Amino acid sequence: MKKIAVLLSGCGVFDGTEIHEAVLSLLAITRAGAQYQCFAPDIAQMHVVNHLTGEVNTDETRNVLVESARIARGEVLNASNLDVNDYDALVIPGGFGAAKNLSNFATTGSRCHINPIVENFIRDFANARKPVGFVCISPVMIPQIYGQGVTGTIGNDSDTAQAFNEMGGLHQTVKVDDIVVDEVHKVVSTPAYMLATSILEAHIGIEKLVNKVIDMID
Amino acid sequence: MKKIAVLLSGCGVFDGTEIHEAVLSLLAITRAGAQYQCFAPDIAQMHVVNHLTGEVNTDETRNVLVESARIARGEVLNASNLDVNDYDALVIPGGFGAAKNLSNFATTGSRCHINPIVENFIRDFANARKPVGFVCISPVMIPQIYGQGVTGTIGNDSDTAQAFNEMGGLHQTVKVDDIVVDEVHKVVSTPAYMLATSILEAHIGIEKLVNKVIDMID
Repeated sequence: MKKIAVLLSGCGVFDGTEIHEAVLSLLAITRAGAQYQCFAPDIAQMHVVNHLTGEVNTDETRNVLVESARIARGEVLNASNLDVNDYDALVIPGGFGAAKNLSNFATTGSRCHINPIVENFIRDFANARKPVGFVCISPVMIPQIYGQGVTGTIGNDSDTAQAFNEMGGLHQTVKVDDIVVDEVHKVVSTPAYMLATSILEAHIGIEKLVNKVIDMID
Repeated sequence: MKKIAVLLSGCGVFDGTEIHEAVLSLLAITRAGAQYQCFAPDIAQMHVVNHLTGEVNTDETRNVLVESARIARGEVLNASNLDVNDYDALVIPGGFGAAKNLSNFATTGSRCHINPIVENFIRDFANARKPVGFVCISPVMIPQIYGQGVTGTIGNDSDTAQAFNEMGGLHQTVKVDDIVVDEVHKVVSTPAYMLATSILEAHIGIEKLVNKVIDMID
């Protein structure tokens, strides 16, 4: 049975993993007859957002690994402890956690850096030529990992698309429920909630992404 | 378009709503061509559980409405402000939040009480003869709302089933991906993660439950 790693970045769209995208990824992996294992880095969140008001709670700190465990029902591993030989592919759901915790794209745009633990984690899959699926805003990490000329999508936001290209990527605009495939780099991306106006739209795109990622496994 | 209320109890299986069950409920409602609106009571959680270690964090408090907003992507209403005329049916996902925050079943078993805000919320649907779907452990609230002789399932845990019967319900054991329907009371229940060993099993049962709830709308 194929085994897919899923990299989380907290628990909640405004300061962590987008919860629907994470659960829809786990569902799609299981529906495809594969297994999943969740991972997250053991680092502090950039901040904690009250998801009712949208305001940052400056008095509170939360840990990405601990909060990701909520989505994983406790079954989450420290991203520092990956043995890539145990996994066939990787899927990274979106949410601001990808741009605030996994990288600092939310504050620095095209000059962003990926957290070193996270960069090593994704590079292990890239170096092993194992396919990686990037959902929603997480594709902003694609150019820094894969270098010049890699294709991907973050939906149709022109500023984010421009930043993707400034970092060396080739951005493609696609419909909400579609995917962009870079066969050379074995990278798949889908807009999900960068464009989705319903959970159903996110579901369709994420299921396409997961099925393509699994198809690309050698 | 049918409009379904979804009652949340926090964000995380051990101290709030079971996240997979909540998202799968939202997905099933949308796939059925209906709309959802999330609600939660504006009350403190019974406690905060570190989902990585399983330990209670005695230094921390979280609010059920605020944490539920994570699952709802910010779009959650205070359960105190329900106008039942605006909704056709109700679905209540599981997780320990249903037994710790919505009720105190986790600590008091068959002598449990339902939080008054939550009891009023569910009774509004019951009194209006609008169908309600209870997922996982949330069916422990069925007997207190609907009274003697109402049927439901909480899976096959004998202690919980016994408590359900002591409160006046008639418990039925069903398979993980099946539902129990009480046509008289317009109540549907499914075991989900009371029995599920995969997200796919929970998905199948929850989709059956949601479709049956929608079928029962007058």
